Amino acid sequence: MNWKIYLSGEIHTNWREEIEQQVKVLDLPVEIYAPVTDHASSDDCGVSILGAEEDKFWHDHKGAKVNAIRTRTLIEKSDVVVVCFGEKYKQWNAAFDAGYASALGKSLIIMHGPDHQHALKEVDAAALAVTRTPKEVVNVLSYVIRGEL
Amino acid sequence: MNWKIYLSGEIHTNWREEIEQQVKVLDLPVEIYAPVTDHASSDDCGVSILGAEEDKFWHDHKGAKVNAIRTRTLIEKSDVVVVCFGEKYKQWNAAFDAGYASALGKSLIIMHGPDHQHALKEVDAAALAVTRTPKEVVNVLSYVIRGEL
Amino acid sequence: MNWKIYLSGEIHTNWREEIEQQVKVLDLPVEIYAPVTDHASSDDCGVSILGAEEDKFWHDHKGAKVNAIRTRTLIEKSDVVVVCFGEKYKQWNAAFDAGYASALGKSLIIMHGPDHQHALKEVDAAALAVTRTPKEVVNVLSYVIRGEL
Amino acid sequence: MNWKIYLSGEIHTNWREEIEQQVKVLDLPVEIYAPVTDHASSDDCGVSILGAEEDKFWHDHKGAKVNAIRTRTLIEKSDVVVVCFGEKYKQWNAAFDAGYASALGKSLIIMHGPDHQHALKEVDAAALAVTRTPKEVVNVLSYVIRGEL
Amino acid sequence: MNWKIYLSGEIHTNWREEIEQQVKVLDLPVEIYAPVTDHASSDDCGVSILGAEEDKFWHDHKGAKVNAIRTRTLIEKSDVVVVCFGEKYKQWNAAFDAGYASALGKSLIIMHGPDHQHALKEVDAAALAVTRTPKEVVNVLSYVIRGEL
Amino acid sequence: MNWKIYLSGEIHTNWREEIEQQVKVLDLPVEIYAPVTDHASSDDCGVSILGAEEDKFWHDHKGAKVNAIRTRTLIEKSDVVVVCFGEKYKQWNAAFDAGYASALGKSLIIMHGPDHQHALKEVDAAALAVTRTPKEVVNVLSYVIRGEL
Amino acid sequence: MNWKIYLSGEIHTNWREEIEQQVKVLDLPVEIYAPVTDHASSDDCGVSILGAEEDKFWHDHKGAKVNAIRTRTLIEKSDVVVVCFGEKYKQWNAAFDAGYASALGKSLIIMHGPDHQHALKEVDAAALAVTRTPKEVVNVLSYVIRGEL
Amino acid sequence: MNWKIYLSGEIHTNWREEIEQQVKVLDLPVEIYAPVTDHASSDDCGVSILGAEEDKFWHDHKGAKVNAIRTRTLIEKSDVVVVCFGEKYKQWNAAFDAGYASALGKSLIIMHGPDHQHALKEVDAAALAVTRTPKEVVNVLSYVIRGEL
Repeated sequence: MNWKIYLSGEIHTNWREEIEQQVKVLDLPVEIYAPVTDHASSDDCGVSILGAEEDKFWHDHKGAKVNAIRTRTLIEKSDVVVVCFGEKYKQWNAAFDAGYASALGKSLIIMHGPDHQHALKEVDAAALAVTRTPKEVVNVLSYVIRGEL
Repeated sequence: MNWKIYLSGEIHTNWREEIEQQVKVLDLPVEIYAPVTDHASSDDCGVSILGAEEDKFWHDHKGAKVNAIRTRTLIEKSDVVVVCFGEKYKQWNAAFDAGYASALGKSLIIMHGPDHQHALKEVDAAALAVTRTPKEVVNVLSYVIRGEL
Repeated sequence: MNWKIYLSGEIHTNWREEIEQQVKVLDLPVEIYAPVTDHASSDDCGVSILGAEEDKFWHDHKGAKVNAIRTRTLIEKSDVVVVCFGEKYKQWNAAFDAGYASALGKSLIIMHGPDHQHALKEVDAAALAVTRTPKEVVNVLSYVIRGEL
Repeated sequence: MNWKIYLSGEIHTNWREEIEQQVKVLDLPVEIYAPVTDHASSDDCGVSILGAEEDKFWHDHKGAKVNAIRTRTLIEKSDVVVVCFGEKYKQWNAAFDAGYASALGKSLIIMHGPDHQHALKEVDAAALAVTRTPKEVVNVLSYVIRGEL
Repeated sequence: MNWKIYLSGEIHTNWREEIEQQVKVLDLPVEIYAPVTDHASSDDCGVSILGAEEDKFWHDHKGAKVNAIRTRTLIEKSDVVVVCFGEKYKQWNAAFDAGYASALGKSLIIMHGPDHQHALKEVDAAALAVTRTPKEVVNVLSYVIRGEL
Repeated sequence: MNWKIYLSGEIHTNWREEIEQQVKVLDLPVEIYAPVTDHASSDDCGVSILGAEEDKFWHDHKGAKVNAIRTRTLIEKSDVVVVCFGEKYKQWNAAFDAGYASALGKSLIIMHGPDHQHALKEVDAAALAVTRTPKEVVNVLSYVIRGEL
Repeated sequence: MNWKIYLSGEIHTNWREEIEQQVKVLDLPVEIYAPVTDHASSDDCGVSILGAEEDKFWHDHKGAKVNAIRTRTLIEKSDVVVVCFGEKYKQWNAAFDAGYASALGKSLIIMHGPDHQHALKEVDAAALAVTRTPKEVVNVLSYVIRGEL
Repeated sequence: MNWKIYLSGEIHTNWREEIEQQVKVLDLPVEIYAPVTDHASSDDCGVSILGAEEDKFWHDHKGAKVNAIRTRTLIEKSDVVVVCFGEKYKQWNAAFDAGYASALGKSLIIMHGPDHQHALKEVDAAALAVTRTPKEVVNVLSYVIRGEL
């Protein structure tokens, strides 16, 4: 069985690459999914494909909906959803994804630094593992898939 | 992962072929589904296989139900449902499919010309992308699957 | 038990009033739901409440979404969804509602004149009763609720 | 029919009271739900009832889970979920609730000021109405419930 | 709490009346549902309301669908579905109802005489109680509702 | 895509073999499922594997439950459920399967001779095709899968 | 809104009465459900109503199924399921109920003494509150319903 | 079709290996899943990967949640869930898994010795087969998959 892992959240550090690399080194049977992580593409995909908008709200709206085709589909196909909260920005879409995945009954793994502990308590409470580093995420995945520490 | 795309609606222009061809050129990992698009077969399949009916209502009824075995099954298996509204006819089955797919939580892409904008506002409001051409549909699919503009 | 009946579709004739009146005369235990049937309110509710839009598409979009709060909620609460197709207009929202209700497993009653028989064959095939007049709709409701012809 | 409305998010301004008051003035048939909005109670409920924790993580964890009994139950019972994002704090639980409600198919109304427009684009894209003030929220509710502008 | 009990199957003996009467004597908090049990009405409701059919198949078809509005709605609302198999006829609709209720997760109580034991083994295997008389059905209902033998 | 077809009902004629053979000739992409059709095995599997029972009811009960592991699993995996009613016996398990499949939203094809038309009207009313011969069943499958008459 | 609370597990101490009494004192808007707690009735209900069995397995089987009509129905109707593990016996039905309620998405409150902490770790991990006394259970209920400590 | 079989419960005897070996000998098309059966790893996985806890409750809690990522995912993917109750320990997680699988509609096979018959009556009543040995489990699997005794 191939495990399907969705990596949601933070797009300004290379945590996804770290996880993908370590997963490859361990040869874990996983299929890794992610949102579009190129910031500019993600912001402009709607107007780029479907035509410009004068109003910034609709500019963003069109893009967010096109991105939702990808994110909703992939989250729904996943077994485990990992959500990373970085140091900066509001990252409401990360928390939205966590809530969405939680209501679908997906296994949630949350990753964040100690500074965000209190602010993320409701999100953490919905998770099956709260981690701090990509290494910890990979160790959890390796254990639950391989069954060995 | 192979994305499953259902192409519903209009059967009198070659929009499906255009999408299929461009998808092939781009080598997108998709499986494309469609209803029976041969008008005569679609109309007469019921009586042709299961016996003639004198009453036109039951003639149509038998055919519509046989076609439903195909359309419901394939829509339920799809990740994305594209619904095209052409220039002519009532096309209520297209709108029915859009409603059906929407209630199942499928990602909807609607395609229609500017003339139908007002009449399709409820359908468009349920969609994640409103497009005008097969090219735009393919660009949306390419972006959400490949993750690149 | 109170039966919940949603009356979808056509808003330019008084078919809803006829059904409501006859249901009252028969004293049937029903709660009747409907979309907003005032054409102008339905078209303009979005911009009227949430601010004007220059682009007609977004004008319509805002309104259609606000109306969807009402229609989706009430369709989901209904036991029976009656969809009436009138003589004029595209009425794609009626067919969309029929598809939406069908996917939710609601009992569908369709009402339309003989002219639309062929164009509505897929919608009729999903229905448990195809009727021509409000009187027939009420007779079906009365029979299934009271259990007497 | 009584509409059930859940008011999620911001707990440091009186937006809930404004909505409740206006709803009462309009005599709308609604039942209004909310999380515990007393900040200290919400933070300390876990340890206060179930025993102290030395580690802040588990202190918060216990409280967040007890609060989840209330929030999940009430969100699941609601027809409409209103989520307000205020000026301050991370408010990840608000975005989590929005994602949770969205996956359950609830009608979402989002409320926030113009500053947060870009950061909330994914959340707004999942909503059926994006509002700026309690007055707008009440106007939407009044319209979808009463059917009149 | 009011328990909702659907009484499916056999329409040629007075087993429903016996159950209803005993339930009333015991003052059990139940709401009892049933299909239309007047054989002629049940057979002819379709053509009587919606117009005659020359072909017996469609005559029956129209009626069966109209009856389904009642039976499906009430079975879905029920907590317990009691299905009685009598001495005569094929009673395939009774077995269909049992399968339908079983797939919906309803608690099934089956009632039949000893002669049908082998033929009903698959149906009995899906039941939580297999009974022989209305008295036994009522005793089961009384026990599970009141909690006393 | 491989279509999954479950063949339920009648086990005393070779209708399943006829369908399988014709499907092979046509090279249709289907996976065909069926219950255990060896009458003796089906009757005795419970006691044969899990120990004898003195009481015939429990003898049958054990077997029916073991068989249910197979039938429920395979029906749930199927896209289309074909149910054949033969000339003899009560065949309540066939009707039970039809009801079960119907509640799961599977596409139903019913097969029976003209004698059973009236007795099967409720079952037929839940079907998308009512057929008389294995040839007709295969023609329906070929059409809905291949899209050609 | 009335909260529905199911009290599962231990039947040899008076913890349910304590909870019911304190809930009454606090005048909490709850409806309290429970299994049959009379040990003899619970063991013998099957044979008492439906006829004696020689084999102890079937004696127990009949009773367990009749009891399941009550327990499954009430757990499915509940908002919160409280499961108490006492000092004695295997109490596998309590753990079964906890698993059943958990898969249905019910809010779980577990109650047990410190001795069982390690053995119940998987059950506790699925709960939103782990309590030691009826007083704690009531305090949790009071807080989540009233919103005040 | 590959059948997916989850083996839950007892981790101190080699019943899983026996089943796996016999299944291999018979060349049954099955994929076998299991929880982590190394007792120490299972107990300590949480703290080992995610950091030590002083409090034994949270030590266990962290581990139980990490294990739940594996067990919930694999149970949800399974067609048949086999639960073995051994001679020793409370084994509440086994009963929890049985309840969880039952609510998801999985086919349950229970395995236990005669001593536990009465204590497991509610669990057995939810099962489709109650077995005593790995040999019996394999015989049931072989029969339902191969269709031959």
